Amino acid sequence: MPQDPSPTSPALPSELQSIYRGISEVFPDQPHSNDPDQNLAQRIQTTNRPLRVKLGIDPTGAEIHLGHSIPVRKLRAFQDAGHTAVLIIGDFTARIGDPTGKSEVRRQLTEADVKANAETYLEQVRPILDFDTPGRLEIRYNSEWLSGLDLGKIIELLGTMTVGQMLAKEGFAERYEKGNPVFLHEFLYPLLQGYDSVAVQADVELGGTDQKFNIAVGRDLQRHFGQTPQFGMLLPLLLGTDGHQKMSKSLGNYVGLQEDPLTMYSKLEKVPDTLIRSYFELLTDLPLESLPENPRDQQKQLALTVTEQFHGAAAAQQAQQAAISLVQGMGEPAEGVPEFSLSTVQFPAKLFYLVGATGLCAGSSDARRQVQGGAVKIDGEKLIDPNQEFASPDPLLGKVVQVGKKKFVRLVD
Amino acid sequence: MPQDPSPTSPALPSELQSIYRGISEVFPDQPHSNDPDQNLAQRIQTTNRPLRVKLGIDPTGAEIHLGHSIPVRKLRAFQDAGHTAVLIIGDFTARIGDPTGKSEVRRQLTEADVKANAETYLEQVRPILDFDTPGRLEIRYNSEWLSGLDLGKIIELLGTMTVGQMLAKEGFAERYEKGNPVFLHEFLYPLLQGYDSVAVQADVELGGTDQKFNIAVGRDLQRHFGQTPQFGMLLPLLLGTDGHQKMSKSLGNYVGLQEDPLTMYSKLEKVPDTLIRSYFELLTDLPLESLPENPRDQQKQLALTVTEQFHGAAAAQQAQQAAISLVQGMGEPAEGVPEFSLSTVQFPAKLFYLVGATGLCAGSSDARRQVQGGAVKIDGEKLIDPNQEFASPDPLLGKVVQVGKKKFVRLVD
Repeated sequence: MPQDPSPTSPALPSELQSIYRGISEVFPDQPHSNDPDQNLAQRIQTTNRPLRVKLGIDPTGAEIHLGHSIPVRKLRAFQDAGHTAVLIIGDFTARIGDPTGKSEVRRQLTEADVKANAETYLEQVRPILDFDTPGRLEIRYNSEWLSGLDLGKIIELLGTMTVGQMLAKEGFAERYEKGNPVFLHEFLYPLLQGYDSVAVQADVELGGTDQKFNIAVGRDLQRHFGQTPQFGMLLPLLLGTDGHQKMSKSLGNYVGLQEDPLTMYSKLEKVPDTLIRSYFELLTDLPLESLPENPRDQQKQLALTVTEQFHGAAAAQQAQQAAISLVQGMGEPAEGVPEFSLSTVQFPAKLFYLVGATGLCAGSSDARRQVQGGAVKIDGEKLIDPNQEFASPDPLLGKVVQVGKKKFVRLVD
Repeated sequence: MPQDPSPTSPALPSELQSIYRGISEVFPDQPHSNDPDQNLAQRIQTTNRPLRVKLGIDPTGAEIHLGHSIPVRKLRAFQDAGHTAVLIIGDFTARIGDPTGKSEVRRQLTEADVKANAETYLEQVRPILDFDTPGRLEIRYNSEWLSGLDLGKIIELLGTMTVGQMLAKEGFAERYEKGNPVFLHEFLYPLLQGYDSVAVQADVELGGTDQKFNIAVGRDLQRHFGQTPQFGMLLPLLLGTDGHQKMSKSLGNYVGLQEDPLTMYSKLEKVPDTLIRSYFELLTDLPLESLPENPRDQQKQLALTVTEQFHGAAAAQQAQQAAISLVQGMGEPAEGVPEFSLSTVQFPAKLFYLVGATGLCAGSSDARRQVQGGAVKIDGEKLIDPNQEFASPDPLLGKVVQVGKKKFVRLVD
């Protein structure tokens, strides 16, 4: 939720509105103060140089979704106001992996893995960030400063915090109290992330609400090394399209940044009413007071606006048309969505045979490979077992089969 | 206390007796096992090369005392049995100091300080260790391997332990539970000490009973890095000459290794009866069954034997003679202890004047300098304020004034 300026506080000047839009918290937070170390608006307005706005990312190579895009969109808001986005690729710890071997997330990556993953990430956020205006984007790899840290400096970093302070961190506290192991190297990671702020001389660090501790460590370390501490700007976690849980690929309630226009549009036009306002606030720049009144129209506008950001206006329009015809179900087909009649298929039928029959692949063998390669979806859901069997055509009627991004047919009787 | 072999265990072969003499604990400890990884005696008897026996020391530059000499004497026992003493000078952490600035002990030292302090240490233990036989002594500075440790290796070290394991360490546990700060870098020190064992491929590590945790960390790290884990050999802490508290310079109940023969002898011949057996066991090689029966004779033998180790037989004998005459007090003067009559001194008298009057210095100015330089003792107690005033001769009568190591007079009426 945005921080509403209190009635007595000065209204935010217009150039700050998109920076402050939709945030959960800024800290330190003294909106009435003239002190640029206590009030971010003051800092922004009185500093005669672009501020350095840090966002750290893990180069895991994962597909990223709209939830991940929120801090990236905030970086863009800072860029548009003339500041410098500093994207920090956490390649160092990715290359170290997890020495205990217990964490799946921190498996050890090669330098080539990391580089490829970083490219994948940048490719996905390219539609959001300003990559072109000189001085607006700095991409840094933290191995640049971390690989040269010697033991003396690491002892200095560790000496800035106590065990009690570290165990107060959410996540550590519960695990320690339940008797689950917390390995000592885990205590180092918040300090290394904090040291990234020192290395890039960050003025602001962006993160989810779960990053408050780490960002505060960055402030402490900057103070320790004689720098003016950064501000923390925390952004809400996005709920998934189910309206209940945090957006997550594994929960299936996500919208990936690289999904094709029709899939993206279709997922977004079903966003529950309870979420629609926060989706508009966090995922678009539209003024909230000018939204359509009808919830159904809101959904459509949301889906169209977000799809436009990633695929451009024409593709978004086309996806909207296609989706309308899909929603109309058995009615007149929308332009660009051909039909395929299941009457020619003998049931029970295996998936690869069915896909081969649609003509979207070069025969059954190609269909099998495409399914195994993850290119086949039915109504936006990826199916990967080519031998999955369908007993009858009934559950398939009206659904759209897609192969890759551009080829789809609607299954009819 | 020594580990008494149980009645059914094989008696220790004679070449192991001085190695096992007086120890508190060996771990792992399975005296009936034939496994050289579980039974140190087996390891010693079945290894076809000199074992590497580690002792770590802090280069603080402090004067060391008989309590400190115990593990050094144990190193010598290993040397005499053909093994290699590996003395590790902890120069790295001494040069880092304490980043929190809270510890007096870990103040930051320069490279030159550390070198000078290491020399001071080696000078003091020279009478105990075998410095000359080739292959019997290795002196290593741990900066050799610690200064090159990179962050990846440090994360690996930290990843071998959990917060719970580290907080179980004596010292940390109490402080944490009382809410006193335990700084994170303190968790690193046991790991660095343990890594020293990896670096020198130690077979045995010696330490006081308070070192069990750190030595066990060394075992874990050696296992982690594919080495056979070292044995730990723990030695008792020596009680001071007061018979109650751990020997310590600050408590005044200590005997320094560099004290002059008379002072050393005089302190040791007053050791309480309750301590005499452990002093014999820990500080001499004499068979305990052949000690004199009379406690007074035991004290003399202890004092003579220990003084001999540091000053040779002649000086020890001379000290014994001098001490006998001192103990005899007003009786006939011992050879070599001249008397000085206080009847020629006008009281109240300042210390420097009194010392100048004895003729042990080249006049009052020299006496003042000698007192300030710490060269003057009365009955073994160093006095450093040249203006200390004595109201009357009474408390001085019968006492011995010393200047330096060789000049002394007894004060008489």
